[in-house]
Amino acid sequence: MVQENFTAQKRASSGGGAGGGLPETRGRGIGAMPRGRQIRKTFNNIKITILCGFVTILVLRGTIGVGNLGSSDADAINQNLIEETNRILAEIRSDSDPNDPDELAESKIDPNITYTLGPKITNWDDERKVWLSQNPEFPNFINGKARILLVTGSPPKPCDNPIGDHYLLKSVKNKIDYCRIHGIEIVYNMAHLDKELAGYWAKLPLIRKLMLSHPEVEWIWWMDSDALFTDMVFEIPLAKYSNSNLVIHGYPDLLFEQKSWIALNTGSFLFRNCQWSWDLWDVWAPMGPKGPIREEAGRILTANLKGRPAFEADDQSALIYLLLSQKDQWMDKVFVENQYYLHGFWEGLVDRYEEMLEKYHPGLGDERWPFVTHFVGCKPCGSYADYAVERCLKSMERAFNFADNQVLKLYGFGHRGLLSPKIKRVRNETTTPLESVEKFDVRGSTIGKSESHS
Amino acid sequence: MVQENFTAQKRASSGGGAGGGLPETRGRGIGAMPRGRQIRKTFNNIKITILCGFVTILVLRGTIGVGNLGSSDADAINQNLIEETNRILAEIRSDSDPNDPDELAESKIDPNITYTLGPKITNWDDERKVWLSQNPEFPNFINGKARILLVTGSPPKPCDNPIGDHYLLKSVKNKIDYCRIHGIEIVYNMAHLDKELAGYWAKLPLIRKLMLSHPEVEWIWWMDSDALFTDMVFEIPLAKYSNSNLVIHGYPDLLFEQKSWIALNTGSFLFRNCQWSWDLWDVWAPMGPKGPIREEAGRILTANLKGRPAFEADDQSALIYLLLSQKDQWMDKVFVENQYYLHGFWEGLVDRYEEMLEKYHPGLGDERWPFVTHFVGCKPCGSYADYAVERCLKSMERAFNFADNQVLKLYGFGHRGLLSPKIKRVRNETTTPLESVEKFDVRGSTIGKSESHS
Repeated sequence: MVQENFTAQKRASSGGGAGGGLPETRGRGIGAMPRGRQIRKTFNNIKITILCGFVTILVLRGTIGVGNLGSSDADAINQNLIEETNRILAEIRSDSDPNDPDELAESKIDPNITYTLGPKITNWDDERKVWLSQNPEFPNFINGKARILLVTGSPPKPCDNPIGDHYLLKSVKNKIDYCRIHGIEIVYNMAHLDKELAGYWAKLPLIRKLMLSHPEVEWIWWMDSDALFTDMVFEIPLAKYSNSNLVIHGYPDLLFEQKSWIALNTGSFLFRNCQWSWDLWDVWAPMGPKGPIREEAGRILTANLKGRPAFEADDQSALIYLLLSQKDQWMDKVFVENQYYLHGFWEGLVDRYEEMLEKYHPGLGDERWPFVTHFVGCKPCGSYADYAVERCLKSMERAFNFADNQVLKLYGFGHRGLLSPKIKRVRNETTTPLESVEKFDVRGSTIGKSESHS
Repeated sequence: MVQENFTAQKRASSGGGAGGGLPETRGRGIGAMPRGRQIRKTFNNIKITILCGFVTILVLRGTIGVGNLGSSDADAINQNLIEETNRILAEIRSDSDPNDPDELAESKIDPNITYTLGPKITNWDDERKVWLSQNPEFPNFINGKARILLVTGSPPKPCDNPIGDHYLLKSVKNKIDYCRIHGIEIVYNMAHLDKELAGYWAKLPLIRKLMLSHPEVEWIWWMDSDALFTDMVFEIPLAKYSNSNLVIHGYPDLLFEQKSWIALNTGSFLFRNCQWSWDLWDVWAPMGPKGPIREEAGRILTANLKGRPAFEADDQSALIYLLLSQKDQWMDKVFVENQYYLHGFWEGLVDRYEEMLEKYHPGLGDERWPFVTHFVGCKPCGSYADYAVERCLKSMERAFNFADNQVLKLYGFGHRGLLSPKIKRVRNETTTPLESVEKFDVRGSTIGKSESHS
């Protein structure tokens, strides 16, 4: 009796109810699904689970950055640090005083009035001579060498591309090294002295202001921040320029015959501290004020100079145009130099450093061992370069190390390779270090210096 | 007949087949689902669609960065530029030659052998005297002033925090300005001369090497890259130190009575180029080699110096410990200076610049107008600062501009505010610029210079 009852209950609990006509699967019990449906449901659940997992991973990726899966907390902290830094910088950068009349509007230059750099200077040579005689502690010649002031600089704000600041730092170290060896003073400018003449024109008001403020300086040498010294021995042969007031790298045939817009290069040039220079700037600067004047001047320059693309007036094209159109007035005091690389365009030079090391030596300054390697178009500080980033950065690294090796040699070191920031000994330590000084100190070298005094 | 046939066909096409017993929904046609199932299926599809959309958004977020949805193409290009730059840098950074024995293993220093900086120098004073007499073109005194070489530097690779390179650049500009005004040469080091003595110890082999290589230099002045000149007029009163060989900022009571680990600061100090200095380094350096030696030395220093946290030996603590434990041997030639801020801890100074401008003037060098403001603990180049990033960056900006104003004054300019990179005229242009030179050139100032010659 019990047996039967159990079986009856069993039959009841297996989800029976009334009678036939139910689908087969019902035999599995109340709530049991058809096999196919269960498989589909399970499959759906798996799909959702996978998607959720994927989503989780992507959330992490978006938060801690691409490729940082598994990175340590340090990277997360670093990222936060960088973001906070950027926020603070944006704050510093955005300073502007709405009540400051200088901040108002854009260019207030009246295009009908010739722009000037400042009050006209007319008697500088005599005034300077008097000042020099009254201030013998600030001579314009030291040990027979004319006093040179190297001027360079960069914008006051951090570079758009962070690596730009690192290469600006290396560039100024490179200049510090050369100038220390050769007794040249440096001004590193990070200020915009004239709102109208910003960008490549900024060097004009700067050089002018420095000349006025440093009458003891005989030559002001402007050098772009993207130009590196690559011959640490070579000295500018100033004796060649005793009758000149402007020394600039270029090619006379490109200038006079082709009227090319790249006939001269204003990335590295020297101006004598004299009245003639004021007069030249007074006619050069008016093409520079930003806005309609600079744009119109740009059109004139493009129309008149071979190969010039259409863009606003730049200082280099403007100078070329000026020297061509007023040749008789200026060219007798302009020395167009190409016997050595006062400016050396990087593309033809940077791949040859190993060859130079093998065949030549510092002090030549020319295509065998370039004085200056100039990274025109690389623009590591900005966002829009004319050349591939990789090519530029690696080439600048090579040029820097090529130069640095010439400095480190005195200390018995050299870079492991032209692309390496690491150094190694190139000379054993000695108990007679002063012999090394005699042998390796560049300042004791006579190569390339025979014509330097003027 | 046709009618009937059509109806029969219709009935057949509606999915009929045999007869009764089919579920009600079947009346909708072959393949039609139950309503509930259709709703569930639709809902599942919606879920999947939403998830997929979400996934897409997250993919974009992870690729172009948080908050950049909708950025312009320029930002995308900039971001690509930065990523490519980082890739190239990683390549340059990772240079290592597996065949170079110097690259192998970690420290090979045997802890049982005292580390040395190089071959022992024992007769430097006499040798240097002979060299100087043989090389009169490299005198150690110029116009009565002892020749000083300022040494600073930073690692050869870009900073972890990109803003670090920008502040290194500003810091070196600040030093260039001071040194130009005061006739001091600069060496900016970006090389690791000694693998064992890296980090804060790196200055030891560097200073030693520079002294050996520059016998014409009377004093080597080490200055950290995070220390800025904030008094452009003040000159180190070298006459006070005619009987000293090491000039370092600190407090005697902190040193001798409290044995505090911050009693002296090695961020800015001067060593005379003489035998005594070699001897001191020979006993100072052995605590520095990284690894077990530096760690063990750190434990000793923490145990013996008040307030020192537990970490590996640093050069400053090691020097303090040395001068305390070998007081009789060294202290007679050490000048512990605190009459002016050869090192000025930034926290108590940066908020007072406005007060200083109001009440005092450059040339004092002390708490009224600090000579050097030193940003200890800010570490803009690294990732782990001891102070809040915002506080540090803004304070460094203020210190830089506070100093820069003193330089720009000669040129008639000044910053718009201590936090502003922009400048404005503080003096009208003049037709007699040389009068401004007489009035504003710092080099003509006699303030703070009365004791400078030694």
